Amino acid sequence: MANHFCLLLIFTFFTLLFPSNGSSLSSSKLLPRFPRYTSRNRGRIQQFRGDRNEYRYETKFFSQQLDHFSFADLPKFPQRYLINSDYWLGASALGPIFLYCGNEGDIEWFATNSGFIWDIAPKFGALLVFPEVRSIGMPYGSMEEAYKNATTLSYLTTEQALADFAVFVTDLKRNLSAEACPVVLFGGSYGGMLAAWMRLKYPHIAIGALASSAPILQFEDIVPPETFYDIASNDFKRESSSCFNTIKDSWDAIIAEGQKENGLLQLTKTFHFCRVLNSTDDLSDWLDSAYSYLAMVDYPYPADFMMPLPGHPIREVCRKIDGAHSDASILDRIFAGISVYYNYTGNVDCFKLDDDPHGLDGWNWQACTEMVMPMSSNQEKSMFPAYDFNYSSYKEECWNTFRVNPRPKWVTTEFGGHDIETTLKLFGSNIIFSNGMLDPWSGGSVLKNLSNTIVALVTKEGAHHLDLRPSTPEDPKWLVDQREAEIQLIQGWIETYRLEKEAKVSLLKRSW
Amino acid sequence: MANHFCLLLIFTFFTLLFPSNGSSLSSSKLLPRFPRYTSRNRGRIQQFRGDRNEYRYETKFFSQQLDHFSFADLPKFPQRYLINSDYWLGASALGPIFLYCGNEGDIEWFATNSGFIWDIAPKFGALLVFPEVRSIGMPYGSMEEAYKNATTLSYLTTEQALADFAVFVTDLKRNLSAEACPVVLFGGSYGGMLAAWMRLKYPHIAIGALASSAPILQFEDIVPPETFYDIASNDFKRESSSCFNTIKDSWDAIIAEGQKENGLLQLTKTFHFCRVLNSTDDLSDWLDSAYSYLAMVDYPYPADFMMPLPGHPIREVCRKIDGAHSDASILDRIFAGISVYYNYTGNVDCFKLDDDPHGLDGWNWQACTEMVMPMSSNQEKSMFPAYDFNYSSYKEECWNTFRVNPRPKWVTTEFGGHDIETTLKLFGSNIIFSNGMLDPWSGGSVLKNLSNTIVALVTKEGAHHLDLRPSTPEDPKWLVDQREAEIQLIQGWIETYRLEKEAKVSLLKRSW
Repeated sequence: MANHFCLLLIFTFFTLLFPSNGSSLSSSKLLPRFPRYTSRNRGRIQQFRGDRNEYRYETKFFSQQLDHFSFADLPKFPQRYLINSDYWLGASALGPIFLYCGNEGDIEWFATNSGFIWDIAPKFGALLVFPEVRSIGMPYGSMEEAYKNATTLSYLTTEQALADFAVFVTDLKRNLSAEACPVVLFGGSYGGMLAAWMRLKYPHIAIGALASSAPILQFEDIVPPETFYDIASNDFKRESSSCFNTIKDSWDAIIAEGQKENGLLQLTKTFHFCRVLNSTDDLSDWLDSAYSYLAMVDYPYPADFMMPLPGHPIREVCRKIDGAHSDASILDRIFAGISVYYNYTGNVDCFKLDDDPHGLDGWNWQACTEMVMPMSSNQEKSMFPAYDFNYSSYKEECWNTFRVNPRPKWVTTEFGGHDIETTLKLFGSNIIFSNGMLDPWSGGSVLKNLSNTIVALVTKEGAHHLDLRPSTPEDPKWLVDQREAEIQLIQGWIETYRLEKEAKVSLLKRSW
Repeated sequence: MANHFCLLLIFTFFTLLFPSNGSSLSSSKLLPRFPRYTSRNRGRIQQFRGDRNEYRYETKFFSQQLDHFSFADLPKFPQRYLINSDYWLGASALGPIFLYCGNEGDIEWFATNSGFIWDIAPKFGALLVFPEVRSIGMPYGSMEEAYKNATTLSYLTTEQALADFAVFVTDLKRNLSAEACPVVLFGGSYGGMLAAWMRLKYPHIAIGALASSAPILQFEDIVPPETFYDIASNDFKRESSSCFNTIKDSWDAIIAEGQKENGLLQLTKTFHFCRVLNSTDDLSDWLDSAYSYLAMVDYPYPADFMMPLPGHPIREVCRKIDGAHSDASILDRIFAGISVYYNYTGNVDCFKLDDDPHGLDGWNWQACTEMVMPMSSNQEKSMFPAYDFNYSSYKEECWNTFRVNPRPKWVTTEFGGHDIETTLKLFGSNIIFSNGMLDPWSGGSVLKNLSNTIVALVTKEGAHHLDLRPSTPEDPKWLVDQREAEIQLIQGWIETYRLEKEAKVSLLKRSW
């Protein structure tokens, strides 16, 4: 009893210190997002840089156009980029330039989590550059500055980000007298979408793209809206149907508990939150989000991307859920399971609900403008709370949050997607769409070869851009094979390009 | 003498009525522009529509996004388009949609001067649409309104125009339940550039493009800056070296005359201007412009595009220049020649120098922002006044005229151009670059096949987008052949597309 009183005091203290703010997007339903850099996974960039010698880079800034597509009198902004030239063959040898298309977040986090590129750089003699996407707020010096003003925020779009990359690398090549050097694009998740779209829109800038876990079809009605949650649910079901069922049943149990007297307080205690829950929805979103992320990072060996996690983390979660004491309640089981995700190190005393309550990273804005990905959760096949995507309420929330109206049909107008097979069968070349089928984003990705040169590399047991992670001694054979196939294809692009260039030079020489 | 006095009175009257305005762009040098709709060629749309039954269309407006690439809170604008569905096979038969990419001017003028599309529409069962490029000032209701405000003017860019087409035709197809119908792009001159770039940037929107006389390489250092004037000069030289030499010598003669007492008045009289010349530059620009346009419209039969002109108009100009009375002065010869261009009908009593003194059409703005085409005139090979393109003074004039700084490297960053052979050899498909070698813009166009499906159709005796003009009984065989080749290629694109679509449908049926 004394213990409970003490907890209550702590909760009251936190509530006073961090008053709840209701401005978060999607209060009705937190739609899945790509893995992102948060306070939870902060602090590990330095560790990577320290641990692995090969993650050495200089941080620089490029004076970038705020708006590429108008001639309004707007200021430039410093675009951050990381660069490593240790392995570069140089301009005269046509040394390739590997450009990682930064994601919707801190570029250092993505650069240090894309070990594949660092691993293969010496083999290719590649210059590495990691330009940051402007979505983090860099154009304005800080996120706070960016979000003050809807006018500046309005330029946080995918098209501007691609143009940033184009202008940046064109200038970089000019400065290095490396105009003739081939550029190869890399990207995972949203960065993978950028890589694929960049190759399609700027073929003169880059000779090919490795687009890992890039759900470029997750728009409008191209794939069924249930795809994401169905895949995530299956990831749990394939480990254990009882685990799947426990999670499926837990949502009602949470609501029932919340409706009791002091129910929210009890749930707060059961789940060890640092402050009292405002609603059962907050808890459901917290769990929902963890299950989605677990499905994304269901890697076959211990990794530390979103969170420090064991190998096959869903298996571990289900082991905890299924293996709890026989008289454990459904909610105790859920807590035991979710602790694998939120507290694998065992160092967390109490949990914070959300470290980004204001939606202050770029993605919420992008989701409310171009990146409208309709997602529903089907009561039958999904273990997640039933949810039907409703565009009207989505739009309303965007208006309330950002005073902006989404353009849900714009992405497919600008980049295509409907019947992509017919479009790309006879158009374009040199794109690898790599996917792991455990990744719930794989459902919105390209999973079949579209032509001889726009190909899909799919692994049954892979998860969210696993191929972009550094090689480890625990890598299963299928992962080693997938990466080898990628290397072969990229090598082929570079060789073909060099033969073209050399043929030109000798033709020029002959005509002198 | 009485006659001279009378003329002087008339000049004075006109000078008072239309005071000179010095705000025109490029006072140091009027760079060549694409053919455009001006007061000189006004009034002939109605005539076309009346004369030829097939040029029937409805004029409609589409509510268009002012800025596609930001989410600033901007108004929409009514984009004008012309539409004819008389020949359309309809959605269920996958009837093709022919989209003409409007140029930098009144869409009616271009639509009624693109008879080829009207000629072939019945054969293809095509729906015809001619959306207007926003550059004419349509976004703002009027050109005057557009030019009041640098903020709104700033959205007159090529990327916005392409996005306009994409959004427009996607919406049109949806409204017609014609999502599966193939779209084929057509365009000539700047419209041809738009067609080619649109196919490259929006392959999911259009299955192919006929880009006629599209100088997509006329940027930066991709082609020598003398290209345009060298070709135009050769068009005169091939008709007559003495004609070429007379024109070449005339510039000095004009300056010498202008430096005499009452020299400008004398030149005004010699060339029958309605008001007194302010400088010899004005006269030189007037002649220079006519020679450039003559090279563009050096068609093999009488036509009425820029001006009513005889067939082989340069031949006629040179015939007048060479055939003048043996004691005619060099300037009298020039006047006799140039009258073929400016006064073929013989109805003009006196000439106005410029009908667009304020540069109030969109092109000057575009030339001062993205469309920076460096052009020089070489004293050796060219008959035009020697001129070295100087970017600093170009930029300065843009600043003085529009308070805008050009971005001369942006077009090649956005659309490519350098070493286009290597880029497009293995990327993209279904573009026809058609050119006539008499056209001075052909020098900045694609004149060689880039791949099996990105091809060049070149005619030695053709001029500026001659292939897009209506068929006539006087068409030479090489022109008939060129158009036939175009029809064959377009038919091939549509057939391949339909086979793909039908294979998909039957695959779907089998899987049911």
